[in-house]
Amino acid sequence: MKEFEWFTEDHTGDVRLSIKARHLYGEDTPFQRIDFFESATFGKFFTLDGLMMVAERDERHYHEMLVHVPMSVAKDPKKVLIVGGGDGGTLRELVRYPGLERVDLVEIDERVVRLCQQFLPSVASAIDADPRINLLFEDGVRFLKEVPDASYDLILVDSTDPIGPGEGLFSCKFYQDCFRALGPDGILVNQHESPFYETYAQSMRRAHKRLRETFPVSEVYHFHMPTYPSGMWLFGFASKGPRPVQDRCADAPAGTSAMPTRYYSAGMHVGAFALPPYVAALLSEEGGA
Amino acid sequence: MKEFEWFTEDHTGDVRLSIKARHLYGEDTPFQRIDFFESATFGKFFTLDGLMMVAERDERHYHEMLVHVPMSVAKDPKKVLIVGGGDGGTLRELVRYPGLERVDLVEIDERVVRLCQQFLPSVASAIDADPRINLLFEDGVRFLKEVPDASYDLILVDSTDPIGPGEGLFSCKFYQDCFRALGPDGILVNQHESPFYETYAQSMRRAHKRLRETFPVSEVYHFHMPTYPSGMWLFGFASKGPRPVQDRCADAPAGTSAMPTRYYSAGMHVGAFALPPYVAALLSEEGGA
Repeated sequence: MKEFEWFTEDHTGDVRLSIKARHLYGEDTPFQRIDFFESATFGKFFTLDGLMMVAERDERHYHEMLVHVPMSVAKDPKKVLIVGGGDGGTLRELVRYPGLERVDLVEIDERVVRLCQQFLPSVASAIDADPRINLLFEDGVRFLKEVPDASYDLILVDSTDPIGPGEGLFSCKFYQDCFRALGPDGILVNQHESPFYETYAQSMRRAHKRLRETFPVSEVYHFHMPTYPSGMWLFGFASKGPRPVQDRCADAPAGTSAMPTRYYSAGMHVGAFALPPYVAALLSEEGGA
Repeated sequence: MKEFEWFTEDHTGDVRLSIKARHLYGEDTPFQRIDFFESATFGKFFTLDGLMMVAERDERHYHEMLVHVPMSVAKDPKKVLIVGGGDGGTLRELVRYPGLERVDLVEIDERVVRLCQQFLPSVASAIDADPRINLLFEDGVRFLKEVPDASYDLILVDSTDPIGPGEGLFSCKFYQDCFRALGPDGILVNQHESPFYETYAQSMRRAHKRLRETFPVSEVYHFHMPTYPSGMWLFGFASKGPRPVQDRCADAPAGTSAMPTRYYSAGMHVGAFALPPYVAALLSEEGGA
């Protein structure tokens, strides 16, 4: 059995987080390098090209905020598309809603799915367990180009950073295709980087500008993500109409005893859309007069 | 001029954050070791006994949430006590309120104040600049024991972790003395550790239990603090009556154009008191039936 060593991720050129972990498995797929580790504090986790993706210890912060925020706003959604999210955490939260009829997951790298099923079953367990799920192993950008109009009620972009395979998922054209693929009250939620470190803040601003140019409603919400750079992370909420706070359904189940959650609650939902003034300023500058 | 090297802080036994920084100055005071550094991403920062205290880049998250939350709830406060806070950041935010008549700062270690004035003027600048400020270099626990009843409208406990000089500031006796030292609508806000890593979560639970046993109103609020372990940090809000959300003054200036802020806003104030369910559960267990 391998020894515990320090896994280190550079968050900036001069800030790095290190986790003492045992390397469980590594593989070069056609798209990226994937590695699985085990650590005392964060449980099992995996990285893509050396960057932390999903750790057992805080993945619910991410997956609950990605799924339950739009699912608490959308009126009777039936068809959902996940782009990316091969680890299965987003699927796991989605299939808790009995009203959903179909969930398509478009993941470019089948090896992410298969290896997460093997090494991270607490996250990936839903992937094979629900007949409403369709797995499609192809490029999300290309898939969205060809999908018929108004195919989905909700699209969740559960992507890596805008480098490597994830780059196209932050483009104008991709957001326009998402708009077209959504029905009349459609909602798009996407991984939206972070306002704190400069390079992530640039990605955040670019994504927000493009989303605002595409969707009539475009907001950003924040949450704590200890394994990600600075721990301060964002999702984007864009829609053809529904507003994330005012239109939240009073009887949404997430965070109640009908659907218990670890991080999400009605109060966290509303609070997450209140932004620190410096974040609001960063987001508004891009669209300034 | 010294080279940049890696400053590393252990957040747990198996998680550490490293910042490339130049060491500016270090000193052993009668109470603790203090060091000043300079880094590209975090600006200047200082540590006590090797633990990150204040960094220019995110100190406003901390100081604004510590000061403007209670100052937006308190009705016409006149006298404020700060326990700890020798860096001056809490003072800097407090003296923005013209209605305050007196601010006493009780700091056990005068060297923290003097060195922050020298190395961190952006944080410490208010210390000598306002005639309402009284500096008292003594033990906060002893000071509170002897202070006359109902001396203050607001007490801010801007302390280190509950080890070393900060330990007594998390004790039952200390909270009882704070209660006694506060006037009829008095508010106590204290540094309340973090729910994420186990050792900090234990301190959080202990502090909350003791506060709840002492004050009729006792809540906890969260904020993003990238330089602190996990980035997910808490303050405690305890009072003899005022409630932190319902009793927030609609005309509080913080976060408006009358008193611009970087992190605090009315929305952030309200949102910060909504806790993730697992944090609420951790806090409630201690006081369970």
